[in-house]
Amino acid sequence: MSIDKDIHKSHISQQFNESLDSIIGKLLEMGELTQEQLQHAISALLDDDSELAEFVNKRDREVDSMELDIDSECTEILVRRQPAASDLRLVLAVSRSCRDLERVGDEAAKIARRSLSLSEEGHLPNGYLEVKHVSELVGDMLEGSMASFRDFDAERALQVMHQDKQVDAEYKRAMRSLVLHMMEDPRYITPALNVIWILRALERIGDHAENIAEYVIYLAKGVDVRHKSLKKVEKQVRQ
Amino acid sequence: MSIDKDIHKSHISQQFNESLDSIIGKLLEMGELTQEQLQHAISALLDDDSELAEFVNKRDREVDSMELDIDSECTEILVRRQPAASDLRLVLAVSRSCRDLERVGDEAAKIARRSLSLSEEGHLPNGYLEVKHVSELVGDMLEGSMASFRDFDAERALQVMHQDKQVDAEYKRAMRSLVLHMMEDPRYITPALNVIWILRALERIGDHAENIAEYVIYLAKGVDVRHKSLKKVEKQVRQ
Repeated sequence: MSIDKDIHKSHISQQFNESLDSIIGKLLEMGELTQEQLQHAISALLDDDSELAEFVNKRDREVDSMELDIDSECTEILVRRQPAASDLRLVLAVSRSCRDLERVGDEAAKIARRSLSLSEEGHLPNGYLEVKHVSELVGDMLEGSMASFRDFDAERALQVMHQDKQVDAEYKRAMRSLVLHMMEDPRYITPALNVIWILRALERIGDHAENIAEYVIYLAKGVDVRHKSLKKVEKQVRQ
Repeated sequence: MSIDKDIHKSHISQQFNESLDSIIGKLLEMGELTQEQLQHAISALLDDDSELAEFVNKRDREVDSMELDIDSECTEILVRRQPAASDLRLVLAVSRSCRDLERVGDEAAKIARRSLSLSEEGHLPNGYLEVKHVSELVGDMLEGSMASFRDFDAERALQVMHQDKQVDAEYKRAMRSLVLHMMEDPRYITPALNVIWILRALERIGDHAENIAEYVIYLAKGVDVRHKSLKKVEKQVRQ
């Protein structure tokens, strides 16, 4: 092979690395935006701040357009570069993760809209302690899933999967207490339902963070963890 | 080019077509299985048939393993064949659709589990007419989305997107009537919540069918319809 060809080749591969860096960078940025959307939506609820809720709801469009942008960049890479095994996995993982993050954005916007309904129709008197607690757990999961992606860190991803079990348990506990609330005083049925939908949205955000963690484990370890028990996954990851 | 090479080339491309046919065939099969799961889950509810509900719940594993099978075949094609533009789009659409169908299966299993709870804890006295109605609409959407995939039929896919608006409206109407039910008699709060989750699962199945319809429109027309109004999509598809 001539030197010229070598230079050409390294140039191509540098361009390729740049385009991979670009989609990862954008995905991490999208992760930050959705984390912010979640935090703002919860603050809007806790502080009864309708303006902030409106802002979150409108800003969901930014999340949507980031998805389209990242996804079209991924398709472009697949078409132009036809990446081989590990790079292909990376591109597919970014493309899938940005779909999950888009859904996270949707759920944050739903929380904001429910918080507006609560402002208008009357709040529950309980101060939303369960919501606050679950939202902190879920926020941690989301942050953890993005950190695991940034560092290709399967252990961190496993931690996210563990946290999801905790969220599910807290979610169920909170649901039970809301149902009791409704039974004690039927006037609280409508606001309690709004809170139920907020909890549901939080639980869904946890699921999306878990999906991203699963892609990271696949990326870092080549282990497909879908539909497997957490114990099995742990064993395979640490093998 | 020698004749041998031509034969070799057509052989390769025949193999490629066969692998594309294979993933489409499996996707359609998975579509049929999820439609059946949905129908069975609803029958289990309407006929108070716990055995059928258990069957649906257990059979969700089949849906899960179909997803893994199809998805790994898609990745295999991407790695080995490095398909160009339109074939690449097809492979990505199949891979995405099988994820949506897996979620449809999850929702059908959720309906089955809620129907078991209703059997155990006591039914609502209203006969679940709204559930029946919404489930028929959603079943149509699911069937339509798979038919549109089979025929690469963007018009059929558009129809699915229209039906989703109808489902959303019916879902909201049913929700309101359930909330009234709960308010009238707090003893119905727990069963009404079970029915609310069933309706929610149906609405989600509709969303997944709509996602598949969107992939078909992208496949057939090259138009990315995500986050666009139905009117805009229609205009672009019919241009």
